[in-house]
Amino acid sequence: MVEQKMLALGKKSSVIREIFEYGKRRKAEIGAENVFDFSLGNPSIPAPQAVTDALLEMVQNTDPVALHGYTSAPGDLGVRKAIAEHINKNFGVAAAPERIYMTCGAAASLTVTLNALVNDGEEVVVLAPFFPEYRVFAEKAGAKVVVVPCRESDFQIDFDKLSAAITEKTKAIIVNSPNNPTGVVLSAETVKALADLLNEKQKAFSTDIFLIADEPYRELSYDMQVPYLPCYYDNTVVCYSYSKSLSLPGERIGYIFVAPNVSDGNDVFAAVCGAGRALGFVCAPSLLQYVVGKCVDVPSDIEAYRRNRDLLYTALCEDGFTVIKPDGAFYLFMKSPEPDANAFCERAKKHELLLVPSDDFGFPGYVRISYCVSEDTIRRSLPAFKSLAAEYLK
Amino acid sequence: MVEQKMLALGKKSSVIREIFEYGKRRKAEIGAENVFDFSLGNPSIPAPQAVTDALLEMVQNTDPVALHGYTSAPGDLGVRKAIAEHINKNFGVAAAPERIYMTCGAAASLTVTLNALVNDGEEVVVLAPFFPEYRVFAEKAGAKVVVVPCRESDFQIDFDKLSAAITEKTKAIIVNSPNNPTGVVLSAETVKALADLLNEKQKAFSTDIFLIADEPYRELSYDMQVPYLPCYYDNTVVCYSYSKSLSLPGERIGYIFVAPNVSDGNDVFAAVCGAGRALGFVCAPSLLQYVVGKCVDVPSDIEAYRRNRDLLYTALCEDGFTVIKPDGAFYLFMKSPEPDANAFCERAKKHELLLVPSDDFGFPGYVRISYCVSEDTIRRSLPAFKSLAAEYLK
Repeated sequence: MVEQKMLALGKKSSVIREIFEYGKRRKAEIGAENVFDFSLGNPSIPAPQAVTDALLEMVQNTDPVALHGYTSAPGDLGVRKAIAEHINKNFGVAAAPERIYMTCGAAASLTVTLNALVNDGEEVVVLAPFFPEYRVFAEKAGAKVVVVPCRESDFQIDFDKLSAAITEKTKAIIVNSPNNPTGVVLSAETVKALADLLNEKQKAFSTDIFLIADEPYRELSYDMQVPYLPCYYDNTVVCYSYSKSLSLPGERIGYIFVAPNVSDGNDVFAAVCGAGRALGFVCAPSLLQYVVGKCVDVPSDIEAYRRNRDLLYTALCEDGFTVIKPDGAFYLFMKSPEPDANAFCERAKKHELLLVPSDDFGFPGYVRISYCVSEDTIRRSLPAFKSLAAEYLK
Repeated sequence: MVEQKMLALGKKSSVIREIFEYGKRRKAEIGAENVFDFSLGNPSIPAPQAVTDALLEMVQNTDPVALHGYTSAPGDLGVRKAIAEHINKNFGVAAAPERIYMTCGAAASLTVTLNALVNDGEEVVVLAPFFPEYRVFAEKAGAKVVVVPCRESDFQIDFDKLSAAITEKTKAIIVNSPNNPTGVVLSAETVKALADLLNEKQKAFSTDIFLIADEPYRELSYDMQVPYLPCYYDNTVVCYSYSKSLSLPGERIGYIFVAPNVSDGNDVFAAVCGAGRALGFVCAPSLLQYVVGKCVDVPSDIEAYRRNRDLLYTALCEDGFTVIKPDGAFYLFMKSPEPDANAFCERAKKHELLLVPSDDFGFPGYVRISYCVSEDTIRRSLPAFKSLAAEYLK
C-alpha cells in the first residue's frame, strides 16, 4: 500500500490539465487554428535574446567540469551576489547573498519555504482565488490551510475576514501579486494595511507571522510598480521564479530571499537550507543558475501581453461580460454569466473556447482566461466570445 | 519558531562539506597543488563532447518557446521513450515510457520515491556503509530508518542480519551498487539471494517490500556488468541520475523507473506523480531533459577513473593499508589503522591528505577516499600516503 495522499494526488489530474488535454484532442480533430485554448499559463513570448546568448556563451567558453559541477548547496555565490545587487538597486532593500537560496523554480521556492517554517498543525492563510497547488504544498508541509476570500468588488484583501482568520496558530500567509488567476496587483495601500494588521496580530499573539511573497509575475505589470513586500513588512520571505519574467517555465530556476529584518533571520535561512536538503533540492541546476546570474537586469518583454490584455478586456466588456481588469500577469478573471462556471465552460467549448472554471482556485462562479497566446489567436477568438455572450443575453 | 528538524539539519553541516571547506582554506594558504583533496564526489572528467554538442544544437536550432516551455509533469514523452528503449536494449526489461518519471537528479529521485511509498512510521532499511543523506530523505518522508551493516570481509550483504531486520513494517530497502562509499558492486549471487529473501518475507508478512535501486554509479563499473535489479526482483523502483555517468552533477537530471512487474505498479507510478507534485518537482529542467534524451547511449568515460583506482589501490596495499578493492564508482574504502577514523583523518591532514571518516556512513573505523581527481594528484599524493602509513608501522 503506497502513501495514500500521494496516490490520491497523483490520480487526480488538475482541471487545468484536463482542459488542456481536451484541447490537444480537439485540435487534432478540427485543426489547431480553430481551437481557442486559454487554459494554460505557458508563456508564448520567447526567452529574451540575452538568455540565448548567455546560454551559448557559457556552453562554448566555460570548462564543462566547472559549468556542470556542483555549486554550493544554496547556489553559486556569484549568482547570489548578482541577484542581491539587483534587489538592492531596484527596491532599496539591503539584500545579502547569504540570505538567497537558489531553487528549482517557483514550486520549489514555495515547498522549501513552507517546510522550513511550518510545524505540524500550524495554519497557513491563502487569499482566494489562489493557485490550487498552494493547498497541496502547504498540506504536505504539515499545515492546515485557511482560505480567506478577497473582496469581490476589486479582488483586493478583505481585511475584516482576514483579521478574523488569523489566530495564534497562523504561521504564514501566502500573497501572490500580480495574481494568478485574477491579474490583480495589490495596491500600496492594501500592502500597508496588510503589514499593519500582521504586526498587530504578531504583537497580540506574541508570534511570528511570515508573509510569503510568491512573485513569479512581478515583472509582468502593465500600469504600476508592484509594491515590494520586504519594504513594507519585516517578516517577509520572497519566493521568486524566472519562469515568466524570462520565459523559462520549463527550466525550473528561481530563488528564495529571506528579507534582512526577518526575526531570527539566520535561523529562517538555516531552516530553508535544511528543508532544501530534506526534500532533495540542494544545488539548483547549475547552467541555468549561471544564465540567470548574467540576466538579472534583462527586462521582461511584456508589450505583447499588454496588447492581448487590452484587446481582450475591451472586447469582453463590450460583449457585456463582467470582467476584472488585470493589472499584470497574463490572466483575466471573468464572472460566469450563470452561477455554475463549469456549465459555462462546457457551453464555451461549443464555441471552441477553452476556459478554466474558478472552483479549484477557491472562488467559484468565475473563469480564468490565460491570454499568453498569440495576438492572432485573441483576434480570431473575439467573434466566438461575442456569440457566447449572445446566448446569455437572449 | 521555524520547523525545528529543518533548522537542525540546516545548521549541521556535513562532515564532507567541512573537510571540503577546510581544503579550500588550506589551498589558499599553501597552494592548491600541495593539498591532496579526496573529500568530494565531484566528477573530474568533463561531460562527453556529445553532451556539449547536444546542448549547443538544441539552443541554436530549437524554438525557445518550445525548448524552455513546460514539459508534461512526468517529463517529455520523447525523452522518456528514448530512456525506455535504452533500458530495454541494455537490460532486456520491458520498460514503458509511462513508467518513467523525469526528476531533478538523484536526490529528487529518492525523495519522490520515498514520499510516494512510505506511510508514517513504516520502516526503510539501509545497508551500512550508506550515503548519509538516505537517513535525511527517509526520515523526512516519515520513515523509521533501520541500519543493517554489510559483511566486513567483502562488503556484500550480511543476510542473517538483513533477515532479522525485516519486519511487517518494512516498506523498502535502499540498495546502492556500485556503492558510495565502498566502490563495491553487489554480485549477481548477492542480488539473487536478496531477491529470494525479500520474496520470502513478502510472503511471510503478506506485504509489499520495495527494492529502491539508487544507481548513479551504474555505468562506472570497471570489471563487471552491474546486475540490473528489475531483472531479479519484481518490486523494484530504479532511481537514476546522469550526474556521474555524463559528468553533469550540477545539472540535476535523472529519472525514476517503476519496473514492469511492480505490484499495483500503476498506483506506485501515480503516487510518484503525486509526491512529485507535493514536493514541488513537476517537470524536470527541460533543456537538460532534451539533452539526456539525445545522449542515452553515450558511453561514460571511465578509463581515467580506472587508472586512478589501479594506481591508488596498488600503492595503498603496498603501504600496508587494509583496502577494499573498488569494483566501480570512484570511491575507495580504507580501514583506519587506529580505531578512531576521525583521529586518523586529523593525522592525514598533517600530510595534506584530505580523507573523510566513515562514521557518518554508518560504519565507523574506515575512511572514504574520493579518487575522482586528476591522475597527477594521485601520483603526487602517493609519498604522503607512504609517510602516513609509516607513522603506524613504527
